[in-house]
Amino acid sequence: MGIDRALLERRLDELYAIAAEPGGGTYRPLYGDAWATALDRVERWLTDAGLETHRDAVGNLWGRATGTNKGKSIVTGSHIDTVRHGGRLDGALGIVAGLTAVEALLEENGKPGRTLEVVAICEEEGSRFPTNFWGSRAIVGSIGKNEADTIVDPNGVTIAQAMRERDLEPAKISSAARDDIDTFVELHIEQGAILETTRQPLAVVRAIAGGAHLEIVVEGRADHAGTTPMDLRRDALAGAAAMIQAIESIARALGAPAVATIGRIHVEPDQINVIPGRAIFTVDLRHADIGGRRALDERIRSLCSTIASERSLPITVRTLHERPPVPMDPEVRALLARAASDCGVTATELVSGAGHDAQILASRCKVGMLFVPSIGGRSHSPEERTNPKDLEVGTKVLAKALELLAY
Amino acid sequence: MGIDRALLERRLDELYAIAAEPGGGTYRPLYGDAWATALDRVERWLTDAGLETHRDAVGNLWGRATGTNKGKSIVTGSHIDTVRHGGRLDGALGIVAGLTAVEALLEENGKPGRTLEVVAICEEEGSRFPTNFWGSRAIVGSIGKNEADTIVDPNGVTIAQAMRERDLEPAKISSAARDDIDTFVELHIEQGAILETTRQPLAVVRAIAGGAHLEIVVEGRADHAGTTPMDLRRDALAGAAAMIQAIESIARALGAPAVATIGRIHVEPDQINVIPGRAIFTVDLRHADIGGRRALDERIRSLCSTIASERSLPITVRTLHERPPVPMDPEVRALLARAASDCGVTATELVSGAGHDAQILASRCKVGMLFVPSIGGRSHSPEERTNPKDLEVGTKVLAKALELLAY
Repeated sequence: MGIDRALLERRLDELYAIAAEPGGGTYRPLYGDAWATALDRVERWLTDAGLETHRDAVGNLWGRATGTNKGKSIVTGSHIDTVRHGGRLDGALGIVAGLTAVEALLEENGKPGRTLEVVAICEEEGSRFPTNFWGSRAIVGSIGKNEADTIVDPNGVTIAQAMRERDLEPAKISSAARDDIDTFVELHIEQGAILETTRQPLAVVRAIAGGAHLEIVVEGRADHAGTTPMDLRRDALAGAAAMIQAIESIARALGAPAVATIGRIHVEPDQINVIPGRAIFTVDLRHADIGGRRALDERIRSLCSTIASERSLPITVRTLHERPPVPMDPEVRALLARAASDCGVTATELVSGAGHDAQILASRCKVGMLFVPSIGGRSHSPEERTNPKDLEVGTKVLAKALELLAY
Repeated sequence: MGIDRALLERRLDELYAIAAEPGGGTYRPLYGDAWATALDRVERWLTDAGLETHRDAVGNLWGRATGTNKGKSIVTGSHIDTVRHGGRLDGALGIVAGLTAVEALLEENGKPGRTLEVVAICEEEGSRFPTNFWGSRAIVGSIGKNEADTIVDPNGVTIAQAMRERDLEPAKISSAARDDIDTFVELHIEQGAILETTRQPLAVVRAIAGGAHLEIVVEGRADHAGTTPMDLRRDALAGAAAMIQAIESIARALGAPAVATIGRIHVEPDQINVIPGRAIFTVDLRHADIGGRRALDERIRSLCSTIASERSLPITVRTLHERPPVPMDPEVRALLARAASDCGVTATELVSGAGHDAQILASRCKVGMLFVPSIGGRSHSPEERTNPKDLEVGTKVLAKALELLAY
């Protein structure tokens, strides 16, 4: 089955060009003008490919090739929104590749046995409103009754107001829920550098990592930097530094896919000549399975407590946020691996450190994902790039998988 | 020779009560109302003790008992200003103890052989204006020509304006310079916990530590906390944490009086789910002698560079501020130790980690300092306290030293 690499690239270029940002990259926030223009463009492509299009209550755009057999749909796609200064591929690739793959399948094989759908999910990134997975949450029916009225963007606009500006009716959100999806498969860029570093063209995602955000407060004693000898100090930052080192070692020792990141740190009183009396830092920890995540969490808490008591620095650890890992469906994983093999490609398995719509959709249907390499691991940036050859391979394997599922 | 402990305590209480701050402690900023009131109070005490008083061009207050012999003066005292929420003893003790000691000497021994003076130095802390040692710098004649006009407090008031409000003439600053001081001795609280921890009542200061303030910038790469495996990271904060640990170890390994403090740290982009791309921290390092300070500085730079290259994190180290250590005069140290011994007290030797007027005056005269213990090492805080017995011992030894010097 042939995939038109030039068409794929041209469509990605077109979407990327819609809202070129002054500082580089593109920005398609939910319900914004660039978002609407991009969605119109995708709808035209879907229509041109012979799909029946439909927008649901939150603005997810669906293109449908009704199957000859009854039964639930096979769906592919990704999200249309981007982060600020977003790249050319995150989300866009899954839509364009899905559309291009389905178009090729219809052309070569005609009407599918099972209904085949391409979806442009309205929101995944949480860049405009302080929520995310808005589109996929609507599809699984998990948006709360008052969410649209209570969540506001930085200009004070509620999601409900923003919806009405696009002729979408917030009262109808629950009508977007679907219970007729059998399988959702998505092609996405890795957004990390594992495939590039290990020189592999494709991965089947094994799981989307679960994680937790912790906040650790280390209490020391603010003293004079000149008059307090080293052995009489209770330096909160020195303790925090030892903990940060320990957390890094724990994640390394557990091995991939365990990761732990200290993204924020603040000290008090934050003066050059005063020993920090308090240090506050965050930990973002992730792992592919419940046991691994628990091990990571427990070891971090235990080693930090040990350091804290060795240094007489009481600590408090607060869990800010927690989400379980989501395994991809084993059948779909096997099918994706077979599709790759049918295309002459050896696909590795990877854990996704980032979140994806599949983790939401997994509550209602079988889900699977394919990753293509990210050059330099860069993403959420204008530097987001993938070798065109890899994009073609990924799209081919996606098409093969859809063929195995729907024909 | 008897020192009236109750009088000593009462005078300290009186000064402390002049400007009780809402959040605790006192505040006598340079040329402020509390400062003026405190200085008037001290002047009355000096006059009552039979000393001739005089205020110089910057507002240093001098009380003089002219000696029977010609020659340079023996001077004792300390600074009258305080930090915000300042304690009862920092500065005040040196003035009150000096006055009380001289008063006792005059009463017991009559007119001194050498001229004996008590000084209340107008400013040492740098709490109102972004400069310090204003009073002692005037005494050694090192205030720059335009300093009074160019240095402003947070309300935009220049030192010159603040002086004129107190009937002091900025154009006459140079007239405050003295070249007729032989020896300056000062009693001060330790502001650290070494004496308390080692259960010693008194120390002769060996040197005032020199130090430097460094700023270290660690450059890493901001990456996604979820998709970047541990071994592909260039985490600026993980590197900074290793450096902070190393700096602590270096100071411990060099041993007292070496100290090194990381008082400030900031990371960019400072987001919970992004690996820090940059970490900026400061180092305050101090040592009693040039060689020690250099060793500290060099080892810190060298170990940080090693960590930086091991982790592929380029660093830049900038010296923000530097001052050499100031040794106290050996003759004066010996004399202070003898005075202690004459009073039946064994004095230890200490290095002052904090700065003092003596380090400025050392360029023009012999200098020496005595430290009494600080309970819990607390200073620059309402919790600044010293056992009354220790205050009495310190004042007695000061009086004995002045007797040895002036009679």
